[in-house]
Amino acid sequence: MTASAWGAPTPAAASPGGYQAGSAIRALQLNDLLEIEKQAAQILPKGGFGYIAGGAGDEWTLRENRAAFERRQIMPRVLTGKGPVDLRTEILGTSIASPVVICPMGGQGLAHVTAEAGMAMGAAAGNTIMTLSTVSTLSMEQVASASSAPKWFQLYLQKDEGVNRELLRRAKAAGYEAIVLTVDSTATGNREADARNQFVFPFPFGNLVSKGTGGDVHALNAAFALKINPKSVEFVIKESGLPVIVKGISSPDDALLAISAGAAAIQVSNHGGRQLDGSPATFTVLPTVAKAVARKVPIIFDSGIRRGQDVFKALASGADIVGLGRPAYYGLALGGWRGVQSVLELLNKELSMVMQLAGTQTVDEAKRTGLV
Amino acid sequence: MTASAWGAPTPAAASPGGYQAGSAIRALQLNDLLEIEKQAAQILPKGGFGYIAGGAGDEWTLRENRAAFERRQIMPRVLTGKGPVDLRTEILGTSIASPVVICPMGGQGLAHVTAEAGMAMGAAAGNTIMTLSTVSTLSMEQVASASSAPKWFQLYLQKDEGVNRELLRRAKAAGYEAIVLTVDSTATGNREADARNQFVFPFPFGNLVSKGTGGDVHALNAAFALKINPKSVEFVIKESGLPVIVKGISSPDDALLAISAGAAAIQVSNHGGRQLDGSPATFTVLPTVAKAVARKVPIIFDSGIRRGQDVFKALASGADIVGLGRPAYYGLALGGWRGVQSVLELLNKELSMVMQLAGTQTVDEAKRTGLV
Amino acid sequence: MTASAWGAPTPAAASPGGYQAGSAIRALQLNDLLEIEKQAAQILPKGGFGYIAGGAGDEWTLRENRAAFERRQIMPRVLTGKGPVDLRTEILGTSIASPVVICPMGGQGLAHVTAEAGMAMGAAAGNTIMTLSTVSTLSMEQVASASSAPKWFQLYLQKDEGVNRELLRRAKAAGYEAIVLTVDSTATGNREADARNQFVFPFPFGNLVSKGTGGDVHALNAAFALKINPKSVEFVIKESGLPVIVKGISSPDDALLAISAGAAAIQVSNHGGRQLDGSPATFTVLPTVAKAVARKVPIIFDSGIRRGQDVFKALASGADIVGLGRPAYYGLALGGWRGVQSVLELLNKELSMVMQLAGTQTVDEAKRTGLV
Amino acid sequence: MTASAWGAPTPAAASPGGYQAGSAIRALQLNDLLEIEKQAAQILPKGGFGYIAGGAGDEWTLRENRAAFERRQIMPRVLTGKGPVDLRTEILGTSIASPVVICPMGGQGLAHVTAEAGMAMGAAAGNTIMTLSTVSTLSMEQVASASSAPKWFQLYLQKDEGVNRELLRRAKAAGYEAIVLTVDSTATGNREADARNQFVFPFPFGNLVSKGTGGDVHALNAAFALKINPKSVEFVIKESGLPVIVKGISSPDDALLAISAGAAAIQVSNHGGRQLDGSPATFTVLPTVAKAVARKVPIIFDSGIRRGQDVFKALASGADIVGLGRPAYYGLALGGWRGVQSVLELLNKELSMVMQLAGTQTVDEAKRTGLV
Repeated sequence: MTASAWGAPTPAAASPGGYQAGSAIRALQLNDLLEIEKQAAQILPKGGFGYIAGGAGDEWTLRENRAAFERRQIMPRVLTGKGPVDLRTEILGTSIASPVVICPMGGQGLAHVTAEAGMAMGAAAGNTIMTLSTVSTLSMEQVASASSAPKWFQLYLQKDEGVNRELLRRAKAAGYEAIVLTVDSTATGNREADARNQFVFPFPFGNLVSKGTGGDVHALNAAFALKINPKSVEFVIKESGLPVIVKGISSPDDALLAISAGAAAIQVSNHGGRQLDGSPATFTVLPTVAKAVARKVPIIFDSGIRRGQDVFKALASGADIVGLGRPAYYGLALGGWRGVQSVLELLNKELSMVMQLAGTQTVDEAKRTGLV
Repeated sequence: MTASAWGAPTPAAASPGGYQAGSAIRALQLNDLLEIEKQAAQILPKGGFGYIAGGAGDEWTLRENRAAFERRQIMPRVLTGKGPVDLRTEILGTSIASPVVICPMGGQGLAHVTAEAGMAMGAAAGNTIMTLSTVSTLSMEQVASASSAPKWFQLYLQKDEGVNRELLRRAKAAGYEAIVLTVDSTATGNREADARNQFVFPFPFGNLVSKGTGGDVHALNAAFALKINPKSVEFVIKESGLPVIVKGISSPDDALLAISAGAAAIQVSNHGGRQLDGSPATFTVLPTVAKAVARKVPIIFDSGIRRGQDVFKALASGADIVGLGRPAYYGLALGGWRGVQSVLELLNKELSMVMQLAGTQTVDEAKRTGLV
Repeated sequence: MTASAWGAPTPAAASPGGYQAGSAIRALQLNDLLEIEKQAAQILPKGGFGYIAGGAGDEWTLRENRAAFERRQIMPRVLTGKGPVDLRTEILGTSIASPVVICPMGGQGLAHVTAEAGMAMGAAAGNTIMTLSTVSTLSMEQVASASSAPKWFQLYLQKDEGVNRELLRRAKAAGYEAIVLTVDSTATGNREADARNQFVFPFPFGNLVSKGTGGDVHALNAAFALKINPKSVEFVIKESGLPVIVKGISSPDDALLAISAGAAAIQVSNHGGRQLDGSPATFTVLPTVAKAVARKVPIIFDSGIRRGQDVFKALASGADIVGLGRPAYYGLALGGWRGVQSVLELLNKELSMVMQLAGTQTVDEAKRTGLV
Repeated sequence: MTASAWGAPTPAAASPGGYQAGSAIRALQLNDLLEIEKQAAQILPKGGFGYIAGGAGDEWTLRENRAAFERRQIMPRVLTGKGPVDLRTEILGTSIASPVVICPMGGQGLAHVTAEAGMAMGAAAGNTIMTLSTVSTLSMEQVASASSAPKWFQLYLQKDEGVNRELLRRAKAAGYEAIVLTVDSTATGNREADARNQFVFPFPFGNLVSKGTGGDVHALNAAFALKINPKSVEFVIKESGLPVIVKGISSPDDALLAISAGAAAIQVSNHGGRQLDGSPATFTVLPTVAKAVARKVPIIFDSGIRRGQDVFKALASGADIVGLGRPAYYGLALGGWRGVQSVLELLNKELSMVMQLAGTQTVDEAKRTGLV
């Protein structure tokens, strides 16, 4: 499957119920990754947009994920003689164009007819890694064939261990290079937008389609494992034979548990404010987690990244790379893989400017910078 | 008196002045306990709604009761392997379905034709305790006959000791299991909504009806005791022969005075922001009171609970159980006893989700959790 | 001159330019002293209202005078057994009904046809002290004859020492019992509302009428002394032979200078936010000033009092009594002397409720209470 | 070239594309330097106004430059006996009327047909120094001939050292008395207003006109030096033979680097919030920079000054003088050189009032005052 093949809608992403996702394939003229949400809201069905944009409860944590960045500042450094900026870095042995990878996000057919294939191609065009969600619209094999770029597979641990083994086996066979084990979803957050919109997924979930229609999120969530502990991490490591990134960490204690269980990396995340409303912003907890982790494993940071300055602040607070979520989803909606590429390019452009103005030339230098 | 008997309006709750309370008996489709206030505002007469919803003065404390929760956060714990959640607990020897009881609230005929009988039945349906106010629409005997579930009787101490003795005697005789002695109302807060709406109670007060029409709040308040001290607590304990919960505590010193006088429990409360505007949020003072109380007696916490996360935060800050006020009142207005049940179910559902995502399986575990 | 004499407009307060001040003499049905500002805005000419309500510059200090109260809270005390409340107190040997006196405010003909005579009668009806401004509409002799209640005379020190001597001589002769020496006005604040409204005083100033029309504020301000120091205080003490209250203090150093010079009392005030915008709220500086003053002389507190809880908080932070400004002015506009009386009654009523709910029975007890 | 010569539009400032800058020459009736922005917005083309008013990114730093002032207050001092205020001071040997000079600002033909000549004349009328930007509409020789008042030349260091030498040679030859070396612009901030308005400069840049049309900001920025370090400072000192002010400092470390390299003064600035959004307000960093500088060289402060109280707060926090930016630009737009003069007069008038009310008579006294 090639980029041009994904340039047009495919039956796999068509909705029987008449859901109208985006279908344009185009580069985006973006001013920033905040206004892109408003643009996406204009073309997406209300239910789909609400699912993507919404958070849990009062959406306090959703807002706080952004607000927390405003409490720390970047000191301009103007006489260091540094430049030009080099954004390249690596994570778990994979070289990437910048310290930004794509987060796992469910059901991308909600955004665009090319669904996760479009996201994978966009990530590839941006020379970075895409993480495929367990609850993707396309199957992991379809997505793997959409681009030759490195990809990770995100696992929602199921109650049925056989299903877990099968998913991990398929992921490895399809060439996914790491498993992102989500551990913050043993209950589903109260996302009220979905309730208000009476939202039901219009598509089956490609990886689970043999288990039924797959579109019923409540049935799906009911199949998720209720108890996750370090042994769960060990299980996934053993079954997959791949590096395992434990995603959904806010507490230093959980970070240490994950590392003890063999995690190859930690993903500091609160699921984009979609799970436990009233939990702290990930940017707030990052320094404490980073102190506990003490660079034993890399830290991936997500939940709230919208600006190059956010990436810089995360790097300067202990992150090795960041994960980008909703803005990539919106880029996909508005322009398919080229939209995703535009989003990544803008974020990298902003980061490059910020690093230059902060007197830092490399990602490692940014990571050694203190905020004020 | 049975649930079905209370399913229809009764003469006792009818208003001679044409006040139109709710009369529906139905389960509610609720997204949260914040929007329910807006829904209730649409069906209740302005004066009645203002009386229920309003606070004292500038309503600073009313708002602060909510805002204070936002200053502390719950740490997600994701690798504890805990679950499923068990909400059951007990208070003063009574087992309840969750750490949520119903606060005393005056004149519930303002909300619904079934008045406090509906509230009692809703509490019973939710397997929890209802506290009946001294200034209820129905008499304590009527309410006692409406459900066999455990109930507490709230006492506004009167200047006339004979009246106090009579009220306590009747409460015990009617099967109320504890007395909630309100001590924060030796003067009445300046609730300006009532003044603006020229609100007068459209019904007599069932417990005091032999004393006159009972609908004149100012005359009623004038009968309240002006001086309350530890001897008052001792008096109520002795006269009632029941456990006495001292309600309206913000100060650690008052908590210790109450305990010295023999209080069986403390209710940290600022009367839902209806009394001393400019006093701190109860959530703000809770940790200090809890430290002083040192688990000598249980602490009931109220004023501001709207979310499962609020219940969790209160438990994690020293409360043993919480009291729910206005949301239950609104549930009664919108759906009678089934509305109250819906409100309790939603709050319990949220609490269950929060406890799961915080890695706590029991109320005791939640109480041992620290906030951040 | 009697109350009834002042019940109708007098030629002295009539405006040649057609300015329409209030003329009603009536008790006011007030919910609070915040909404009274909006009510006054509806009946007063825009220029006059702007002069009364406006502050300096961005009005940051004007707003901060209110906001600062919200940062400290009153602890409810519920088991002290105190009550009923007694508001009576005294200041400089004069007994007053409550710890609230009337601040000096210029040109009260802007508000009401009875001008400062109405204010004096209202203060008398409220059993408290009225302070007459140097720049009053009526002359100090006219005001003195309007009521037999105790009055203070506020002095803007003039460059011309002869004028100062004459004003002090007249004040003493007319029976004013103390001099309030304003020291914070050696330059005039940038009150932009006046500039926008192109406001000019429509009346001459009664005390200075022999010096010209008196209506030109800029000419008037130009006559004010530019340099004020402890010797100025000594001069006023000596010339008046009366107790001198030094008004306009925010700094502990200035408080100590005033006391060393013989001040009988200190008035902590920032002129209601009308002078130095960007200066701290008086409530913010009060504890530090009080600590420096160490009860050597009484402290009068003003700038921002609108609620009974504000009075309590000031008392609990070191004030002995408070001065009420704009709300009294608005009460005068809306109801003449009876309006002033209504304003005082409402404030006292609120204070009484607050003291009761805070477990304090007397002003001295309120002063010994700590805030939280 | 004389003032009257500049009273009318000149061909040099005419836009081939029909851009309509202001052309009035008049004194302004100003209430404050905040509303002047709204007035300027009404007469300037949207693109030009957006370029002047806009900041980088979310404009957080732009707003924070103002908000930071509100976190410190000025203590009124009322018994010091000081007055009248004398605003005169000096900087680098040049006497000025007040501690306010004009910041460098690009392309002032956007504001007014007289462009930088009008600004120079306005500064001269206000007896202060104007700093001419490298990217001015008029050439530095044209501006030098417009007034005989002292002027500084701001340098954006170019990649081409020959161009730098030529600019410095011309500046010295034209009589500029110091070089303001901007060091915070090795990348250009993401000013989104310009992108939204598709703004292109309608005029060539007078100093660089021999290098092409000069109106392409991106081409222009591409010519700017990417690496600036202490050797750059030494280079400019050596080549110019003039005192060099290093502008764009937020970090104490950069301040010390600049001083070690021979800087004659430091200009604490974040380019008016136009470069690194998410950097701290200059008022926030000023005390730390001042402590590091320890009065070895003077500190010029800019970014956010709109009020006399801001000037005072900056002086009291370590600044020796302040630079005024956008308000002067707006004054130029609205009234040419007389508008600039009006702006300076109003700011000086406010500062004079503030100093009087703060009990300070001279700039040196203001600098010795602590804030609260």
